[in-house]
Amino acid sequence: MAVTTPHQPQPAAGIEPAAGIDAQEAAQSSPAHARKRYRDGLVVPTTGWAAGFTQTNLVTLPRDWAFDMLLFGQRNPQPVPLLDVTEPGATSSVLAPDADLRTDLPLYRVWRYGELVDEPTDVTDLWRGDLVTFLIGCSFSFETALMDAGVPLRNLEQGRNVSMYRTNVECRPAGRLSGPLVVSMRPIPSRQIVTAVQVTGRMPQVHGAPVHIGAPEALGIADLSAPDFGDPVDIQDGDVPVFWACGVTPQAALMASRPPFAITHAPGHMLLTDIPDSVYRQP
Amino acid sequence: MAVTTPHQPQPAAGIEPAAGIDAQEAAQSSPAHARKRYRDGLVVPTTGWAAGFTQTNLVTLPRDWAFDMLLFGQRNPQPVPLLDVTEPGATSSVLAPDADLRTDLPLYRVWRYGELVDEPTDVTDLWRGDLVTFLIGCSFSFETALMDAGVPLRNLEQGRNVSMYRTNVECRPAGRLSGPLVVSMRPIPSRQIVTAVQVTGRMPQVHGAPVHIGAPEALGIADLSAPDFGDPVDIQDGDVPVFWACGVTPQAALMASRPPFAITHAPGHMLLTDIPDSVYRQP
Repeated sequence: MAVTTPHQPQPAAGIEPAAGIDAQEAAQSSPAHARKRYRDGLVVPTTGWAAGFTQTNLVTLPRDWAFDMLLFGQRNPQPVPLLDVTEPGATSSVLAPDADLRTDLPLYRVWRYGELVDEPTDVTDLWRGDLVTFLIGCSFSFETALMDAGVPLRNLEQGRNVSMYRTNVECRPAGRLSGPLVVSMRPIPSRQIVTAVQVTGRMPQVHGAPVHIGAPEALGIADLSAPDFGDPVDIQDGDVPVFWACGVTPQAALMASRPPFAITHAPGHMLLTDIPDSVYRQP
Repeated sequence: MAVTTPHQPQPAAGIEPAAGIDAQEAAQSSPAHARKRYRDGLVVPTTGWAAGFTQTNLVTLPRDWAFDMLLFGQRNPQPVPLLDVTEPGATSSVLAPDADLRTDLPLYRVWRYGELVDEPTDVTDLWRGDLVTFLIGCSFSFETALMDAGVPLRNLEQGRNVSMYRTNVECRPAGRLSGPLVVSMRPIPSRQIVTAVQVTGRMPQVHGAPVHIGAPEALGIADLSAPDFGDPVDIQDGDVPVFWACGVTPQAALMASRPPFAITHAPGHMLLTDIPDSVYRQP
C-alpha cells in the first residue's frame, strides 16, 4: 500500500513508492536532492522525505481567481495557512528558491470547473503567465512536534492515513469561493490532550490548536469509522477524538466553487521546501 | 494639543478634541455609541474611546490594487496584520457589522497617485462598487497589555505621540506595492525588556514582538530625536530603545507606489470595532 501523507485524501490510484527507495536515504536527503529526484521522474509520496523540512500543499489558480483564494486564506487561517503566495506567472517561491514549481513535485492534479481531469508529473506545458501559486502549511510539522512531545499518533501506529471529514461548519466565504471546513481526526489519550493542545497551539501556521475535542456530532460527523477522506483509524480505550483544521479544505472549496482551471499537488505528493519545521514553532 | 494615537503620524492640522468631551465618558462609551457620535459629526482622535475594544487602521483601494495590498499584508504580517478584508463594494466589516465604513470614522484621508488630496469626515460620495477595505491591527491593543504588565510608556507619560521612523529595511514587495518598513520606538527600562517582548510576542495580530532592540543604527536610524513621524520622546536613564513594526508601513507603501485612488483613516482617527482587545491576546 502506498504510504500517504497524513493530511491528504485518496492516494493516486496505482501510485506506489518506487522500488529501491530506502527509507533512511529518503529521510536524510536534502530538500534540493529530493526535488531533483522527483524532477527526474521519481513518483513517490513525499512523506518521510527530507526529515525536518516543511512540506506544503500547493494550489495554483489564474490571477482572476487568486484574489478570492488569497481572501479565503486570510479569512480562514486555520484550515488555509498561507506560507507563501507567488506573483502571477512565477515558477518558484521564497520557501524553495531553487525549486521549479512546475516540475519539482512528484505528482500534480489538474482541475477544470471543479473536476479532476489529469494527474501529470510535470505541468510545464499548462503553465501560464497569469497563474498564482499558493503554498499552504500542512500537518507534517505538527505531527513531528506531537511525537517529540511523546503524544502517540494512532494512524501511524496502524499504518493508515489519517481520517478526514467534511463538517457542518462552513468556512467564511471569499468572493466566489466557499465550502465546508474539513477536519482531520487523531485519537489522543485523554491524559495527553492538554499537551496536544499546547504543542499544536504553538504552530498556528500549520493549522494550530484543535478546532474541536471530543464530540464529533457537534461538527456534524455521524460516524467516525466512515471518514470522507483517508482511512478509518481505530480509537483505543482511553482515547478521545481530537479534530484539527485540515489542508484539504481549500481543495473542497475548489470542488464546490468550480474555477475554470486549477492545479494542485496530488494527495501525498507535496512541495518540499528549504524551511526547517522549527521555523513554524513559536517560542 | 490634539491627543493622537501612538501609532499614527501627523495629526490633521487644526483638529482638536471637541469641547465638552469628557475622557471618562469617552472611555466608557460602547463602540457603537462612539461610532454614532462620529457619524453625527464629532471629529476627535479616537484614542481613549471605548476602552478595551480594538481599533484598526483603514486602507481602501480599488479591486485592481486590492490583490497587491492583500499580498503585501500576507508577505509582511508584522507591519501589516490584516484583521479583516472586505468584499469589493462592501460598506461594513465582520469586526463591526453595524458600522458604516464610509461614515463612522471621525476623519478620512483621500489619496490620488500617492498624494493627499482631501481630508473629509464622510466618504460616501467617493465610494464605488470596486472598493476593497483593509482593516489593519494597531498598537493600542498591545500598549494596553504593556501597561497591564507594569511596563511604563514614556510617550504617554510625556504627553507625546510615539516616535516613528522609516528604516533601511525594505518590506517584501507585492505586485506594484513596495516601501520601507516603518517602526515605532518605545523607550523601555532595561529590566522590563523581557516582559515587553513576552507580552507583545503573544499579540502577533497587533504587530507582535519587537523587530529590534537597542541599536537604532542597525535599522538605518541616525538620530532618535528626529523621528520621521510623531514626536520625539525622551529616553530616561536605564531605558533602551525598543522598535516594533508600525501600522504606518502600508501608508508609506501607498505614498511610494502611487495607486490612482485610495482612502485611509486620518492619523489618530481609527475605526472602532466591536472586538475586545483580549481576542488578539494569545493564551
